[in-house]
Amino acid sequence: MILHNFFRSSTSTRLRAALNLKGLEYEYKAYSLVKGEADSPDYLRLNPQGLVPSLELDDGTVLTQSLAIMEWLDEQHPEPPLLPADPLARARVRALGHAVGLEIHPLNNLRVLTYLKRRHGFDDAMVKTWFTHWVEATFAPLEQMLGGHPKTGDFCHGDSPGFADCCIYAQVWNNRRFDVDMAPYPTINRIFANCDALDAFARAAPMAQPDALT
Amino acid sequence: MILHNFFRSSTSTRLRAALNLKGLEYEYKAYSLVKGEADSPDYLRLNPQGLVPSLELDDGTVLTQSLAIMEWLDEQHPEPPLLPADPLARARVRALGHAVGLEIHPLNNLRVLTYLKRRHGFDDAMVKTWFTHWVEATFAPLEQMLGGHPKTGDFCHGDSPGFADCCIYAQVWNNRRFDVDMAPYPTINRIFANCDALDAFARAAPMAQPDALT
Repeated sequence: MILHNFFRSSTSTRLRAALNLKGLEYEYKAYSLVKGEADSPDYLRLNPQGLVPSLELDDGTVLTQSLAIMEWLDEQHPEPPLLPADPLARARVRALGHAVGLEIHPLNNLRVLTYLKRRHGFDDAMVKTWFTHWVEATFAPLEQMLGGHPKTGDFCHGDSPGFADCCIYAQVWNNRRFDVDMAPYPTINRIFANCDALDAFARAAPMAQPDALT
Repeated sequence: MILHNFFRSSTSTRLRAALNLKGLEYEYKAYSLVKGEADSPDYLRLNPQGLVPSLELDDGTVLTQSLAIMEWLDEQHPEPPLLPADPLARARVRALGHAVGLEIHPLNNLRVLTYLKRRHGFDDAMVKTWFTHWVEATFAPLEQMLGGHPKTGDFCHGDSPGFADCCIYAQVWNNRRFDVDMAPYPTINRIFANCDALDAFARAAPMAQPDALT
């Protein structure tokens, strides 16, 4: 498998964590989003959306959309599971992951921030305010949904990491780039720390990638 | 079941279509997002994110996040399926739905447009340009991913409607509010028309809801 991705992309980070949790090996192929490398004709042939990550399978099939790939991973490589077995528990874990994946990341990814700068003249301070606003709008209820729920354990659901933890882990790394105040989110911080103590997550972190800082 | 939703919300529309495809009955409870009714303390107790839709089950369990609810529906009520059986086909259908659900809707929903107006002084023309930009950024590759794929049939994947069709159907309704030019998307238009010809979709359409225009 070839993982087409970018060290700092949080959708890439969440997928790397999922691949690592499954114990799957992959060839790492980097695309600098800052340099627009995911907009190249070669990459657009793999993924017409021009987004990372994409996962290229050994038969040449290309999977896109990180959350869809994580679902595929869980179906094709069931152990260890990213989603619990119980249907209502699965719905809870997906909803927690989707809160991050649908309500924060799409608003705060590089192409949106770049559009706000180029088209609407946002300066760095305005970008930081925008980024922080959408993190807070979701992390506040997410903290409540995690902190107040009996199923929350060392991780989002029980004591094993999974789908939602991958999403949160990647988002917290992203938050650090914009110095988001994490003090209001003790449960999220605890889960992040528990993830980061695991090799599967630490190896997925942005700064652990070969293209970091290039 | 009680569906907490809003007629014009495209996440609500996609979930209504999925519920109708499954042949499931639900009590309709409307929350005017324009009036901020999803921010009421009563609703926030059901869904701390203050977003619609939420699906309240008969035992009081509340499910949130439309795509997560659709996955739960498909697990609990397998027939007719929203996702195909083959793992790679499932990955394709999820990716098509996520292209809409993650790359368009989160940028174009009411709370984001309201924030752009209030915080950044966007007027109606600027909002329309913003909305249209993010539709085009995804609909152009989506048209390519659908039009050029051998599995695309009357619907996104074969000749039965499912997960991705629900997402596209809802988005096209949303586009109409902003007069998005749909001429470049013949495959998407064909799929929308095929959906709209089905009772399950037509009954899910925004203007078919009891709170429409209120």
